[in-house]
Amino acid sequence: SVEATVGSFKTATAGSKAVTKVDSGQMMTSFLGFSGSEDLGGGLKAEFVLETFLATDTGGVVPNNAGQYWGRGSNVALSGGFGKIALGQYDNALFTYGYTYNPFGSSMGFSPTMRHFYSLGSLGNAKGAALGVDTGWVNSITYETPTVAGFAANLQVTPKETSAAGAKNSVTVGASYNAGAFSAGLAYMDADDQQSANTAAGTAFAKDQKVTSLGASYDFGVVKAFGQYTAVNNAVAADETIFQVGASAPVTAAGTVLASYGQYKTKNGGSKDTIFSLGYDHMISKRTDVYAVISNEKVTNVKAANSFAVGIKHNF
Amino acid sequence: SVEATVGSFKTATAGSKAVTKVDSGQMMTSFLGFSGSEDLGGGLKAEFVLETFLATDTGGVVPNNAGQYWGRGSNVALSGGFGKIALGQYDNALFTYGYTYNPFGSSMGFSPTMRHFYSLGSLGNAKGAALGVDTGWVNSITYETPTVAGFAANLQVTPKETSAAGAKNSVTVGASYNAGAFSAGLAYMDADDQQSANTAAGTAFAKDQKVTSLGASYDFGVVKAFGQYTAVNNAVAADETIFQVGASAPVTAAGTVLASYGQYKTKNGGSKDTIFSLGYDHMISKRTDVYAVISNEKVTNVKAANSFAVGIKHNF
Amino acid sequence: SVEATVGSFKTATAGSKAVTKVDSGQMMTSFLGFSGSEDLGGGLKAEFVLETFLATDTGGVVPNNAGQYWGRGSNVALSGGFGKIALGQYDNALFTYGYTYNPFGSSMGFSPTMRHFYSLGSLGNAKGAALGVDTGWVNSITYETPTVAGFAANLQVTPKETSAAGAKNSVTVGASYNAGAFSAGLAYMDADDQQSANTAAGTAFAKDQKVTSLGASYDFGVVKAFGQYTAVNNAVAADETIFQVGASAPVTAAGTVLASYGQYKTKNGGSKDTIFSLGYDHMISKRTDVYAVISNEKVTNVKAANSFAVGIKHNF
Repeated sequence: SVEATVGSFKTATAGSKAVTKVDSGQMMTSFLGFSGSEDLGGGLKAEFVLETFLATDTGGVVPNNAGQYWGRGSNVALSGGFGKIALGQYDNALFTYGYTYNPFGSSMGFSPTMRHFYSLGSLGNAKGAALGVDTGWVNSITYETPTVAGFAANLQVTPKETSAAGAKNSVTVGASYNAGAFSAGLAYMDADDQQSANTAAGTAFAKDQKVTSLGASYDFGVVKAFGQYTAVNNAVAADETIFQVGASAPVTAAGTVLASYGQYKTKNGGSKDTIFSLGYDHMISKRTDVYAVISNEKVTNVKAANSFAVGIKHNF
Repeated sequence: SVEATVGSFKTATAGSKAVTKVDSGQMMTSFLGFSGSEDLGGGLKAEFVLETFLATDTGGVVPNNAGQYWGRGSNVALSGGFGKIALGQYDNALFTYGYTYNPFGSSMGFSPTMRHFYSLGSLGNAKGAALGVDTGWVNSITYETPTVAGFAANLQVTPKETSAAGAKNSVTVGASYNAGAFSAGLAYMDADDQQSANTAAGTAFAKDQKVTSLGASYDFGVVKAFGQYTAVNNAVAADETIFQVGASAPVTAAGTVLASYGQYKTKNGGSKDTIFSLGYDHMISKRTDVYAVISNEKVTNVKAANSFAVGIKHNF
Repeated sequence: SVEATVGSFKTATAGSKAVTKVDSGQMMTSFLGFSGSEDLGGGLKAEFVLETFLATDTGGVVPNNAGQYWGRGSNVALSGGFGKIALGQYDNALFTYGYTYNPFGSSMGFSPTMRHFYSLGSLGNAKGAALGVDTGWVNSITYETPTVAGFAANLQVTPKETSAAGAKNSVTVGASYNAGAFSAGLAYMDADDQQSANTAAGTAFAKDQKVTSLGASYDFGVVKAFGQYTAVNNAVAADETIFQVGASAPVTAAGTVLASYGQYKTKNGGSKDTIFSLGYDHMISKRTDVYAVISNEKVTNVKAANSFAVGIKHNF
């Protein structure tokens, strides 16, 4: 899938000025991937995924936090009646529920949730974002249960991969429920300081961070409503909370209006970052759509900033 | 497409000695690409291109000037009766006309035009070549008109992508005419100092460089004649001129003799670089050809150097 | 092909501790490749290969010794009744016979031969392994004869690619014989100091190293026996010898037991590294297998280390 944008971008940082540019990765991160599934009989399947993020505007590769080429996904898995077990780099449940329960999905430029989780820039911890972990976890073992009566769960474990004293494994557990128009997901992550200890080995987690995130959506037909609440407990920094409310509304057979309001706050008198994005997405085919978005960011004691963009997404 | 060469190479620089090597990228830069086109109805199409240059001899990636992996092309486009509009990295008209109107095409090793434009080595500006820009422009918006009565035109704009004072956008306009055996193309480029200001953002242009380039060819049947003249106006260095005359002659059903003579000169008493290449290309199938080339380079006050090479090109 | 492992790994180095990790490349180095063959008529074919090694666990690219992306193979070739001639990066005969005549094949984690040749870690020359050359040779011209009465031979030459005094070309010659259950291969390499002189150009050989390697196997049906002996003559370091004896035994229609014992020794009172690996490989389809391996490493004057791993390989 490729995506490109032309727009005027500004962040709510002191002295920031609007910059007009051709960009990519704002509405969706472009990627090229190879994947396959082999039927092993008896309902069992062997599966693999190799996907590299890319920047359409410059021809660049967008690596994962570990600096690696196949940054979107890299794993081999067995699936069957027992669920699915995958080894390698696999999406983390905070990311999966994060993009599922907001109307802008995985948009790193316009989704308040994605920006607060992964690309805050102006605030947050040393990684410039609330979460010290990547969207996908490298070096992980991931297990997903089958769906039973609308319920499904998943477990992701990353060994510490070191014999250094004090290091711990990192774990995320997730659970989701889907019933008709209603959907909800809950994830809990306990990640250890693998990033500093193990950068060379490619792990990328924050020092002892515990995150609980709840998201839900309800599709009323004329409008689909979204809500998310996330609590971040940091061992070595102030705790953080993030919430988001949003809606998407199909206004024509091909057009959808998207709106999302999200707030990031550090506890104990820290700063607030508030983002409101309003967009219109128009499918010109099943594989191609064009969009226009305006996004406003406000940071405590900093002048608000507006960004505008139009762009195109094309799946292949 | 893959290409590899065995040859003896020498450049016209003081103290240079001939080196025998297995090489690639001399006759054509190898690449691997993914592209597609989706029919959107009504004559409208969505298109994408992702292409990476590579070095067959070492297994290396040959990045664009911005250092990026998908260096040959990376864009998403809409095309239809109105022409084509593309966002991302897209071939620049100086390159397109540059390889169209010389018999060695885009050969970075043997085409005098390509060497003088992009890989001069021993002379020229800080980039070691006359043009401070890449063969394809990253971060660009490119518009191509449809062809009407043999005429076509194109416009390529790259926003400056900075709020720094004094920076300007970069622009190239091109026009071409084709009528039977005759073909001609004219391009004008005005590129600003985006390279130094914006390296991290992936733009790669020279400081305030204005280039006018005219090329033409006429196919007499027994021989096709080529000519090119390029004037380079540099804000911070001596102006430059480049010309090339060449011919290709089909000598058998599968074999073609190629000859090209080109000269690069800096004004105000600067050095001259003269390259003459003579080659024979033999198609052993529609997709595969073998070639032999001898190339002579003369530089003012430096001993002339000869290079010899045989190689193979294979399209897939 | 993708491969991933979960295991406890320990090397026989002073102070080494066992580390539990999700890994890849232990049983087989994962890769993604593109290749093709064009029939040119008269038995002649044009062929190409572009293959990149990868690390499934992190999404990483595993470059060749020259640091290049297409590290597993990158070449264009012509083949026909005369044999095959290839230009570019092509497997070296020491590697080809090295993986052919041991039961763990090209396993960089568990095959004693592969570890002693290429990834010794704790002992050996500056490259941390007996051989100063890569598994595939970049910048090479490779010729393979056709097979006649079970005999085949190959020649690989890499020009020195420098005019520096004292540098020499590097050469490997190989010969193999196959007759029913019996197979043997003999390779001789004379590689020069291209690594230090030519790192930038992508060559990767050790300073004046001469290697003779003999391998053989015999398939008794209930068990296949393997043996290898390699003598390494170093111009600037102590000479080395490597031997391996091994066996593979099909115990069920889908399961095979693998055992390999190998020893690496430096002459003149140097250290010894002894590795014994015992594995079980189970094909769950023609394309997918799972395996379990235990490997013991002993080094002179260092406590022995055991590694355990289970994993999955999936070809696509």
